[in-house]
Amino acid sequence: MAKAYVASVGFTKIGDHWESSLLDLAVEASMKALKAAGGMAPEQVFVGNMFSSYGANQEHLGALLASAIGLKNVPAVKVEAACSSGASAFNIAYSLVKAGAIDSALVVGVEKMRDLEPEAVSQALAMAESAEYTQFVGATFAALNGLLARYYMEKMGVERDELSSIPVIDHTNAVTAEHAQFRKAITPDVVARSAMVADPLRLFDCAPVGDGAAAVVLVSDRRAAEAKGRLAEVLGGAISTTEFSVYERKDMLRFEATEKAFEEAMKRAGLPRGKVDFVELHDAFSVVGALSLEAMGFSKKGMGAKDAKSGRYRLNGELPINTFGGLKARGHPVGATGVYQIAEAYMQLTDMAGKNQVKDAEYGVTQNIGGVDTTSAVHVFGRAG
Amino acid sequence: MAKAYVASVGFTKIGDHWESSLLDLAVEASMKALKAAGGMAPEQVFVGNMFSSYGANQEHLGALLASAIGLKNVPAVKVEAACSSGASAFNIAYSLVKAGAIDSALVVGVEKMRDLEPEAVSQALAMAESAEYTQFVGATFAALNGLLARYYMEKMGVERDELSSIPVIDHTNAVTAEHAQFRKAITPDVVARSAMVADPLRLFDCAPVGDGAAAVVLVSDRRAAEAKGRLAEVLGGAISTTEFSVYERKDMLRFEATEKAFEEAMKRAGLPRGKVDFVELHDAFSVVGALSLEAMGFSKKGMGAKDAKSGRYRLNGELPINTFGGLKARGHPVGATGVYQIAEAYMQLTDMAGKNQVKDAEYGVTQNIGGVDTTSAVHVFGRAG
Repeated sequence: MAKAYVASVGFTKIGDHWESSLLDLAVEASMKALKAAGGMAPEQVFVGNMFSSYGANQEHLGALLASAIGLKNVPAVKVEAACSSGASAFNIAYSLVKAGAIDSALVVGVEKMRDLEPEAVSQALAMAESAEYTQFVGATFAALNGLLARYYMEKMGVERDELSSIPVIDHTNAVTAEHAQFRKAITPDVVARSAMVADPLRLFDCAPVGDGAAAVVLVSDRRAAEAKGRLAEVLGGAISTTEFSVYERKDMLRFEATEKAFEEAMKRAGLPRGKVDFVELHDAFSVVGALSLEAMGFSKKGMGAKDAKSGRYRLNGELPINTFGGLKARGHPVGATGVYQIAEAYMQLTDMAGKNQVKDAEYGVTQNIGGVDTTSAVHVFGRAG
Repeated sequence: MAKAYVASVGFTKIGDHWESSLLDLAVEASMKALKAAGGMAPEQVFVGNMFSSYGANQEHLGALLASAIGLKNVPAVKVEAACSSGASAFNIAYSLVKAGAIDSALVVGVEKMRDLEPEAVSQALAMAESAEYTQFVGATFAALNGLLARYYMEKMGVERDELSSIPVIDHTNAVTAEHAQFRKAITPDVVARSAMVADPLRLFDCAPVGDGAAAVVLVSDRRAAEAKGRLAEVLGGAISTTEFSVYERKDMLRFEATEKAFEEAMKRAGLPRGKVDFVELHDAFSVVGALSLEAMGFSKKGMGAKDAKSGRYRLNGELPINTFGGLKARGHPVGATGVYQIAEAYMQLTDMAGKNQVKDAEYGVTQNIGGVDTTSAVHVFGRAG
């Protein structure tokens, strides 16, 4: 098996990009990543995106991007798996590099959400759920996660301020993250007093709506010398799926897709859980962050939010999470999010994280969810040996 | 390198499926293919689809299908590359099997087009072209191909009845194809007198609008014995892309994506062109069929339509094309088409093609285009050794 490395990253700030099209954002991130890799031409292009057709009347993003950045005669496709599109695109590229099928790839995640009215964003996101059942009854993603949060709090005895601790960590870390959408620290009180979205979830429990694109260049050991940037090794990775809708599952508080993807990724990496130095978590809602930490075994059942409150997951804690602000504060341009997480893990493991640097970070995990943990794509990264 | 085989196929008839949802169609095709493979559980699921969000408010098709057919804890994603989504999904699965990353996969192409009004179908298909440039001026796919057909006929001296010969072959072959949308033979006169769509292209130059799903089970040599169906070997395959819009290209009559994908796929297969016994062609418009035959070198420049008229490409000719009716008569449910082509190649090479059997067929090629040959995915198949 070949070794696989992230050789460079590039991304846009997340937020309102009224002046840029979907393609403009993808081109900007790609050109930054390709330049940082010394201008090497990747063999294949993978674009992660969820709803370009809904949001921009555009499909065929693979060829559109390849052509726009001047790559000719390359294979180029879009990969979609709802909000886990970005990491799923990365996973396929990584699997091909690891297996020796290709020696380099450009992986780009992109989403343009701010051109849509809020109701349209809700509808676009709801496409991650079944059109025939869940959408049909009018359940939005916030509604589903609200029900889940209510159940979690009741069953596990989780308090409001414990749940708030996850968005508080995110906002604290984002203050010094240049690409983050919201660079403002908050207190648990701000979360508790923010507008109700889907009881008990409030505005500050929920990831915001933003535009953004992130890109990474992947290389095998055979082409690593050619890339001019610092390297971080991809040690393992896996995608897993489970029963499609949360209400179909025996235990709704078990994030089985994340559990299985994490297990498999760590097994491939040959890494025990205790070696992980930081986690980029898919906390689209505070409750999703808590349940994800539990699914990966970093917190015991029912302890995800409580551990967050204890300080364990702060940037200077035992196991920092969301080192640049996570989905809540860095932002969540859905199809791009997984690639932002990978770019952030790369920065941590190449000492390019600036004020957000996790001290002595050797290994990091990224976790990217589609649906209510219907799909989960987990990757494990380490310093290049 | 492992060997890769198609172990079974399954598909729906193409046409109006008012009673079935997008998911119903994908499930039907998948269950047929899995049953034909002896009930084996594939390791990974790939769904090719272009516009489920536009047509059915549905994304996240990978997990949706995996969950619906009872596959748990498997990786599952959607792959999109406009009308070449089906073969692109297959190509990624095949590349992973070939490289030894996985030993089995289910590849499903699905599209539901008939729920949309005709104008909406035009808009959905136009998403294969640039929203900012081509869609913006109101050019539909038929319009772009009409301009191309006019240029081709003028420059190469191609006559109306020569161009008509491609749809005539399609309709002739579809008469005995049970899954075909239109099972009715036509004459060149029927094409020439049909309604004008985009001068000079008439109704019978253009692939119809239909619903359908096709599935194939892919296995490596390590799991081939486990699959109960007959085997056809995947000898080679490639995706290529070129300048995004046809008007950006130096030579608009050169289908460079198909040319390069074909060259690469044949090189990987180690097969000279002369050994090919039949071709499943992406003739979304008659002119596209002609230019594709020229790009792959089966006809000389300007001779694609003329050779079709000569009889060379008939089912009993020197090199049969579209042995079950091609895009014009078998039908073109866009994201599914590439998988239908592969299923048809499988049937030819396992002697399951019935009245459409190409005598002594040893090798076949499938070619699936996205855009006006912006993306092309070509695969080469042979009898299992």
